[in-house]
Amino acid sequence: MTDTDSNKPATDRGGFTPLHLADLHPSLADPAMTSMNFLNEVAIRFPDAISFAAGRPTEEFFDIAEVHRHLDVFIDHLRHERGMTAQEAQRLVLQYGRTKGIIHDLVARQLAVDEDIHVPHESVVVTVGCQEAMFLVLRALRSAPEDIVLAVSPTYVGLAGAARLVDMPVWPVRSGDRGVDLDDLRTQVHRARRAGLRPRAFYVIPDVANPSGISLDVDVRRELLRVAAAEDLLILEDNAYGIFAGEQRLPSLKTLDSDRRVVRLGSFAKTVLPGARVGYVIADQDVPDHENDVSLLADHLSTIKSMLTVNTSPLAQAVVGGALLTHGHSLLVANRKESDLYQRNLSLMRAGLERHLAPFTDRVAWNTPAGGFFLTLTVPFEADDALLERSAEKYGVLWTPMAYFYSGDGGSHQIRLSFSQGTQETIDTGLERLASLLADCC
Amino acid sequence: MTDTDSNKPATDRGGFTPLHLADLHPSLADPAMTSMNFLNEVAIRFPDAISFAAGRPTEEFFDIAEVHRHLDVFIDHLRHERGMTAQEAQRLVLQYGRTKGIIHDLVARQLAVDEDIHVPHESVVVTVGCQEAMFLVLRALRSAPEDIVLAVSPTYVGLAGAARLVDMPVWPVRSGDRGVDLDDLRTQVHRARRAGLRPRAFYVIPDVANPSGISLDVDVRRELLRVAAAEDLLILEDNAYGIFAGEQRLPSLKTLDSDRRVVRLGSFAKTVLPGARVGYVIADQDVPDHENDVSLLADHLSTIKSMLTVNTSPLAQAVVGGALLTHGHSLLVANRKESDLYQRNLSLMRAGLERHLAPFTDRVAWNTPAGGFFLTLTVPFEADDALLERSAEKYGVLWTPMAYFYSGDGGSHQIRLSFSQGTQETIDTGLERLASLLADCC
Repeated sequence: MTDTDSNKPATDRGGFTPLHLADLHPSLADPAMTSMNFLNEVAIRFPDAISFAAGRPTEEFFDIAEVHRHLDVFIDHLRHERGMTAQEAQRLVLQYGRTKGIIHDLVARQLAVDEDIHVPHESVVVTVGCQEAMFLVLRALRSAPEDIVLAVSPTYVGLAGAARLVDMPVWPVRSGDRGVDLDDLRTQVHRARRAGLRPRAFYVIPDVANPSGISLDVDVRRELLRVAAAEDLLILEDNAYGIFAGEQRLPSLKTLDSDRRVVRLGSFAKTVLPGARVGYVIADQDVPDHENDVSLLADHLSTIKSMLTVNTSPLAQAVVGGALLTHGHSLLVANRKESDLYQRNLSLMRAGLERHLAPFTDRVAWNTPAGGFFLTLTVPFEADDALLERSAEKYGVLWTPMAYFYSGDGGSHQIRLSFSQGTQETIDTGLERLASLLADCC
Repeated sequence: MTDTDSNKPATDRGGFTPLHLADLHPSLADPAMTSMNFLNEVAIRFPDAISFAAGRPTEEFFDIAEVHRHLDVFIDHLRHERGMTAQEAQRLVLQYGRTKGIIHDLVARQLAVDEDIHVPHESVVVTVGCQEAMFLVLRALRSAPEDIVLAVSPTYVGLAGAARLVDMPVWPVRSGDRGVDLDDLRTQVHRARRAGLRPRAFYVIPDVANPSGISLDVDVRRELLRVAAAEDLLILEDNAYGIFAGEQRLPSLKTLDSDRRVVRLGSFAKTVLPGARVGYVIADQDVPDHENDVSLLADHLSTIKSMLTVNTSPLAQAVVGGALLTHGHSLLVANRKESDLYQRNLSLMRAGLERHLAPFTDRVAWNTPAGGFFLTLTVPFEADDALLERSAEKYGVLWTPMAYFYSGDGGSHQIRLSFSQGTQETIDTGLERLASLLADCC
């Protein structure tokens, strides 16, 4: 250390040469991030606008007292059903713990009860929401630059985000009107392989998808599994909304999966509590190593998790565990009120769209999801950021441009409408405002 | 879809070609992961062995009732100090929320109260433990293959893990006997740059480091900041143990940082509750973009977090927030009992080492940390996995080979001894057993 070191000329920022965005990871310069920020910023600038944009669960039944109760229920369960001492139970919930989680058995039980999915407890990794689950799987699968992931387009932005963080391209597969165009899936797999790329997995939301609201019918589900078998593809099934898919619930891909080809990604954000940030991944695939010892993919996801977040807050897990225990391990039972509310809102949306958009039925169209949080509105003009801003400012109504969910072109004339947080009044008034926008544009 | 697709020959695993470890991300085949697994596995096989291996905080004062109280204190704070309605307070804690967190202001206040660090609230990102904080920073900084991070060797395994996930080499810098060899730091920076690499940051734990127990004295801290200024290096300061650094606490690097060159990584795992999994990163560095608009590095870390975990459980944050509010925003105040316990254990370790290892003082040596959880024992034989297993089986005592914390050679004749969870009895008996091992090996 010489004296001159401390006398070096300082920049105007006090000596430290600023970091430049161009020198940070490319994910940070991705235009998709700009879009989402734009939407948030418009929502903040026009707080009185009625929002069909956010996809958050209803707050109607939030109750902090219930959180306290669920924590106590889980502790009681540890004491009286697992035979732990008070000290042992406290340690499990308050100390560092198992990387794969402490409610893995309850998660496996819930999947058995609600979805007839039967997996070993060891194949469950409890994660910091479904977002971490997606990251873990993509980080594991992206081992070389030629690795890509296929996804139905439009695609949930969380999948695209996780893929960006591991520099993994997302190849779009057409949705078509049945939720996934299986011919296009085969075409894309073959095209990618001819280009020297490795399609590592195919990502799909089979039930009332975000953003489209489309569900795959049973035939499509079975055909998808056959295509995946023929092409030897792993399927990543995201099932965040399956519990709210309506009366006619269909078997999930994991339920139909007879050769452990499906990795299930799950979330308790919509079914228990967003504020817990608890999700999971089921990865019961075998992974032989160079000595031919076999472990589960879940074990490797756990290793990655140990380097990423160490473990999912056991305190937050305990609250989710208490909720599962309270409702006999069934999220269908736990969410009766919520399901009714979302179905009521869906009916209100359909009725409202028919009423307020009657003058435009020759020029607009909307789909009719079986449930979930979202539906798609197709319009005869470009639904871009500029229109969104005008919609918020002049008409007081917010929505999400469907283009946000496409990696390239696509969705330019579509709008995602969310109805999970609306009331009879906001839905009606919001759609009336939307009709005014349409009158102006159509 | 043709009929033959479903009739394809199945492998013995039911049709699905197993994933091979060699096709998964290289971090999963890293020998360091094997070492940590080995240690855990030995601990499970010999449950009666006294452990100086784990670095967990004491469970002496765990109290689930306190968790309930802290949650209520935070809700009361929102209601009565921030003027929220009951509904607004519940929404903040239970709904999806701000990516940067909901206790950023309390974290900033704690740093001001305990450490004389003054940063804008917007520079705080609340994370899923310190581990996610490390990942966010390394993911942001690793934009090209030539990007590397420098770190004092031996290095906390968490840093090495996060770096592996973003394929970022960790270049070791010698510790020397003052905690960091500044000549070696300069040498490594120059050597890396000559090799066409970009050292993006230097990682260091200045207070009672994990694994060595060494603290940097004030002169070394100031000199380190001067070297970083001369070389235009970012410093990543990990301060997980600073609150337990003993009576003579020294100013942190962030406290001394006059040109926003220090990114502070923090954890509430040791100071509030491991089970909350809440940590933070302070990143008040300016980042100009291509249009010369300036944002904070924290904003970009937040963007990465939105693609990784969305946000840190606000419920878990609320529990940590309640603890901070209960103790006047001071972790020093909150941890008086814990600090006393760790200091008592350190004294017991020093006395025990002097008593039980007296026959070997010409062949072994140990350092004398000012506090923290760990100390280093140097032995005249190789302290490897084989010896660890023998130590557990034959002598009933566990420790961590220091070699685990080196990326290449190094630490082969050193042992990390943790004393955070011991009692008078276990420390005394454990050191007696360690003396038997030494008698066998020396």
